[in-house]
Amino acid sequence: MNNFFNELKSFFQKLPGIGPRQASRFVYTLVDLTKEDREKMGELISSLDKYLRRCGSCFRIFSVGGDVCSFCLSTSPRDNFKIMVVEKDSDLFNIEKTKLYNGAYFVLGKLFDPLEEAGIKERIDFLNKKIKKNEQAEVILALPPSKQGEFTCEYIKKIIGDKVFLSRLARGLSSGIDLEYADENTLRHALENRK
Amino acid sequence: MNNFFNELKSFFQKLPGIGPRQASRFVYTLVDLTKEDREKMGELISSLDKYLRRCGSCFRIFSVGGDVCSFCLSTSPRDNFKIMVVEKDSDLFNIEKTKLYNGAYFVLGKLFDPLEEAGIKERIDFLNKKIKKNEQAEVILALPPSKQGEFTCEYIKKIIGDKVFLSRLARGLSSGIDLEYADENTLRHALENRK
Amino acid sequence: MNNFFNELKSFFQKLPGIGPRQASRFVYTLVDLTKEDREKMGELISSLDKYLRRCGSCFRIFSVGGDVCSFCLSTSPRDNFKIMVVEKDSDLFNIEKTKLYNGAYFVLGKLFDPLEEAGIKERIDFLNKKIKKNEQAEVILALPPSKQGEFTCEYIKKIIGDKVFLSRLARGLSSGIDLEYADENTLRHALENRK
Amino acid sequence: MNNFFNELKSFFQKLPGIGPRQASRFVYTLVDLTKEDREKMGELISSLDKYLRRCGSCFRIFSVGGDVCSFCLSTSPRDNFKIMVVEKDSDLFNIEKTKLYNGAYFVLGKLFDPLEEAGIKERIDFLNKKIKKNEQAEVILALPPSKQGEFTCEYIKKIIGDKVFLSRLARGLSSGIDLEYADENTLRHALENRK
Repeated sequence: MNNFFNELKSFFQKLPGIGPRQASRFVYTLVDLTKEDREKMGELISSLDKYLRRCGSCFRIFSVGGDVCSFCLSTSPRDNFKIMVVEKDSDLFNIEKTKLYNGAYFVLGKLFDPLEEAGIKERIDFLNKKIKKNEQAEVILALPPSKQGEFTCEYIKKIIGDKVFLSRLARGLSSGIDLEYADENTLRHALENRK
Repeated sequence: MNNFFNELKSFFQKLPGIGPRQASRFVYTLVDLTKEDREKMGELISSLDKYLRRCGSCFRIFSVGGDVCSFCLSTSPRDNFKIMVVEKDSDLFNIEKTKLYNGAYFVLGKLFDPLEEAGIKERIDFLNKKIKKNEQAEVILALPPSKQGEFTCEYIKKIIGDKVFLSRLARGLSSGIDLEYADENTLRHALENRK
Repeated sequence: MNNFFNELKSFFQKLPGIGPRQASRFVYTLVDLTKEDREKMGELISSLDKYLRRCGSCFRIFSVGGDVCSFCLSTSPRDNFKIMVVEKDSDLFNIEKTKLYNGAYFVLGKLFDPLEEAGIKERIDFLNKKIKKNEQAEVILALPPSKQGEFTCEYIKKIIGDKVFLSRLARGLSSGIDLEYADENTLRHALENRK
Repeated sequence: MNNFFNELKSFFQKLPGIGPRQASRFVYTLVDLTKEDREKMGELISSLDKYLRRCGSCFRIFSVGGDVCSFCLSTSPRDNFKIMVVEKDSDLFNIEKTKLYNGAYFVLGKLFDPLEEAGIKERIDFLNKKIKKNEQAEVILALPPSKQGEFTCEYIKKIIGDKVFLSRLARGLSSGIDLEYADENTLRHALENRK
């Protein structure tokens, strides 16, 4: 339609899973909201960093009120001898929801990509220093059970070495998987770790 | 997380097809945009009505520069003796893309709902007056081939009467449909209108 | 496993939509049927042509009791001045189910394929002779609304010429189609044939 | 169509995943096979038990040449100190394909169903006797990671007791699972068995 339309549409296309068609429909929908709603929404987005930020210690998104998140405060009741490394905030929230884990986290932001090593190296170096200082007892790698997840685990091991006990979430049969269609890797882990 | 997070998330849930999970991911994604990007995006949303509006004559979304859209200007090169009634802007844009039609449009905004007659009646009354004034030669109903679409067509016919020639997009076999699975309605139209 | 297994499996793979995995499961399932069930099923398949055959006049599958099917008998109450050309028996059964049509049929068996013209030519020549003899008033092409369906219609027109009135099932909007995603061809037909 | 058609169709509907529509298409397809093919296929099905049978010792399907399958022969090179319990033959074949396991199998045929305990009890009693006699060192339960699979494992444990080492395939993250969507059960196993 015009520059305004295309510019706003291009911002919506930055959101995960949104293509040009759905981005257009988002703009149409905004036209039919009240002026008041649009102004409130725009203001929330513009001022987001007053309220949400990545923690300077674990890189998870938190509600601003200092430089580090509530999990990373020295007064936090969480078990800071464990640190779980995840790829992204959605993984962290899913794990939190289960209440199975009460330690600290460390958000990588992305997986290891051989063509773009720099970005992730910096964050893992940060993790490395943090471990040395805090004397964590265990680092738990909760990364995706995929090729890229494996590479990232290997890469982290190489950098962190044997300073701490490094464990990985167990591979095996996920709920609901069909043994008739399970792949070799999954079956191998399920068989080796049977108990 | 907190009020800010939930408030922004609730705005994203107003967008078509977006549930709570994806709305959360949109907020996480915003955190990782630059502050500059967020401010620009927020500003575009806040000031949207300076750039986009529904046309006061055909109700389609257009780039502001007056009260009516370029299609509805008296100087428009389009064939204003035809007026195509569509449910929503996305339908209009899909039809425009094909370049098969060069008349005017009229966007209903929603289909007829017996429990909420008022909303749509007002818009159809508007269409009715407009027809009387402009002496359109044909109104083409391009509404969905569904039960609700049928009801809406009947409702429009009742209000508009026989002031103009009222036609409907033809029913029949859509590209790629499988005759083995075609429903009775589609087959009946395809058979009756064979040629 | 062995030759027997693979041979039976290969027969199941001749059935439409059945790949090697499902074919194997069919064989396992047979092992768990009763011996009596297997023998009955085997006998039905072996003796199928005593009960089912393609009609010598319209090529649809019918219950044996003569050379031609009940629709093609001279005593049939069906309207034999119309003949509807379909690709396959499943299309015919779907159309019969709607009770919208009471004429004769002609099953092509496949669509026109430029690399394999011979097979279909023979059947269309047969249709051509039949039309001459029976003086049908109308041939209705009920072929798929796809590229290959179009080619087949053109091919039939070329052979049959203007001996009879040749019509085609109407193209247009099928039940449930979304105007926002309708392709250009469908919209063109829907617009041209509006009424 | 007629009794013959419906009878043959009902046999095809006994095959896993086949509904009335696909069963009809199977019959149509058979009409177009050669008479020779149909007779061969019918004969293979009728005489199936001369070639395939369930083993009298492990209940897997095998190529006839005695009462027990090649895996169960006393001369088998397989490691008969292990016995893996699976639900169905397709699971067994998938595990064999990976070449990760070289022990014996035991096919349950179905999972534990509280409303129909009798069927499965008989087979587990058989397994129980077999274990006593053969002095297997380990029984590996390779049953589905579902509620019903859990119940079946518990049921087997109760009957077999602590005569042998009873292990289960490990639960955890299957290849390709997304941590953002992993269910609580899977995460709990993945966390508890991390290493």
